[in-house]
Amino acid sequence: MTIETLSSVRSHGGTQGVYKHASTTTGTDMAFAVFIPDHAEGAKLPVLWYLSGLTCTHANVMEKGEYRAACAEHGVIFIAPDTSPRGPDSNGNAVPDDPEGAWDFGLGAGFYVDATEEPWAQHYRMRSYIEDELPSLVLRNFPAADLSRQAITGHSMGGHGALTIGLRNQDRFRSVSAFSPIVAPLQCPWGEKALSNYLGDAREDWHAYDACALLDQGLRVPDLLVDQGDADNFLVEQLKTELLVDACERNGQKAEIRMQPGYDHSYYFISTFLAEHVAWHAERLKA
Amino acid sequence: MTIETLSSVRSHGGTQGVYKHASTTTGTDMAFAVFIPDHAEGAKLPVLWYLSGLTCTHANVMEKGEYRAACAEHGVIFIAPDTSPRGPDSNGNAVPDDPEGAWDFGLGAGFYVDATEEPWAQHYRMRSYIEDELPSLVLRNFPAADLSRQAITGHSMGGHGALTIGLRNQDRFRSVSAFSPIVAPLQCPWGEKALSNYLGDAREDWHAYDACALLDQGLRVPDLLVDQGDADNFLVEQLKTELLVDACERNGQKAEIRMQPGYDHSYYFISTFLAEHVAWHAERLKA
Repeated sequence: MTIETLSSVRSHGGTQGVYKHASTTTGTDMAFAVFIPDHAEGAKLPVLWYLSGLTCTHANVMEKGEYRAACAEHGVIFIAPDTSPRGPDSNGNAVPDDPEGAWDFGLGAGFYVDATEEPWAQHYRMRSYIEDELPSLVLRNFPAADLSRQAITGHSMGGHGALTIGLRNQDRFRSVSAFSPIVAPLQCPWGEKALSNYLGDAREDWHAYDACALLDQGLRVPDLLVDQGDADNFLVEQLKTELLVDACERNGQKAEIRMQPGYDHSYYFISTFLAEHVAWHAERLKA
Repeated sequence: MTIETLSSVRSHGGTQGVYKHASTTTGTDMAFAVFIPDHAEGAKLPVLWYLSGLTCTHANVMEKGEYRAACAEHGVIFIAPDTSPRGPDSNGNAVPDDPEGAWDFGLGAGFYVDATEEPWAQHYRMRSYIEDELPSLVLRNFPAADLSRQAITGHSMGGHGALTIGLRNQDRFRSVSAFSPIVAPLQCPWGEKALSNYLGDAREDWHAYDACALLDQGLRVPDLLVDQGDADNFLVEQLKTELLVDACERNGQKAEIRMQPGYDHSYYFISTFLAEHVAWHAERLKA
């Protein structure tokens, strides 16, 4: 479990690094970004995971997310993984992609599932990668990371990832937040396309990857914050925030779900509120 | 003097727009970015100009600069022009570029001069574009902009632009700042390449585009703030901050010139300190 440092720069009173490792889960090299605020030697800092949306790599939020000042102020480590395997795999073969090269499936669109269908099952295992392999790697390679204090957030497909991974691992994350999340993949075109291809047509197998379904199954997160722009082009057809509002109310899930007037789906929206999310998580991550 | 809106998004409690117009100065279409914080109808806000560095367009700082939160807090309009004409020109012809396609000359490297040599003189007129045409366009199209209160900053080649335009227009700018500026184009390879090509071999013609030379000629700015990373790969050969320190001391120019330990030449550096520059300018731009 060794990692290679691709870049390391000083920013906002900390170190923004990009790292690469050979993932046994996806069978490919995987890159991820880590921001570590300056800290006393031997000190431990809590970790906020950020899962990115369709088409993104670790780099989008690293360049446009505006999280570093808040992470430095609050002493929070920020980790941004990639959104899918990208290949080539460890045998030198290309990782399968959407046959038509669509941007909402395949490369950049792993949907944070462990695929069971061919040709996806071998490499598209982002659930296990985020839930198991990457935390282990961080534990071994980043001694400043206090993995007893973790929180998770994400955007769009990554908001779906944060919600579902948070719900399925409620002992691991003290708090969960999301920007413009896909709240019910069972009920939107992006979700139906991804889950039918990765998991097959048995829709009961999809429930583990649907935040609203997991809430109805009785899973909970300790605390939840969601921001959604009301000028988001994907709101009505894909994101359907109201389904999450209803599921939280129906199931007694503590949540603050905010509609932000005039904001769209872009990093101009995310960057406006990400510092506030960092502060919200930091309050819940105190030792 | 009409402008076309290329994009307009809500961000950080304001509007981030990108606009295009047919420039009579460069003979090409030119794009620029403007962030306007929310303000009362009829209210006027001061303007901070940001000039970008080699290879950049208006988009780099817009995506990576992390200025919007500070501009919204302090009520400052932020304008980021492009760094050169890009063509095609109004006759449909390509704008000349470095014959070898180098990134430090030609497209993306206008150096904020009015070129006098062929084939550059017709289009490479970024001095007049920034000093005359774009302010006039802003005056007519952005009624919230109070052009009696202006400040200017920039990065690298754009830091050179901010310093030289600031020095040559001391009644227009209440304050000038820069990140990693090229402080003496007469004494570095980037400057010698650009100025010899754009202006010819008579080095006395270059002095109008050299901040240290302008200081020695007696020009001043009301107040000056400079941040420079000491891990900047370009510091020793190209930027030579110490020449500006000496020129300010020699000439009695009020200045705070800070070496920032560990920081490089990238937007990871700029974004760390840009909000502080916005606040510094805002203090000097008060009505």
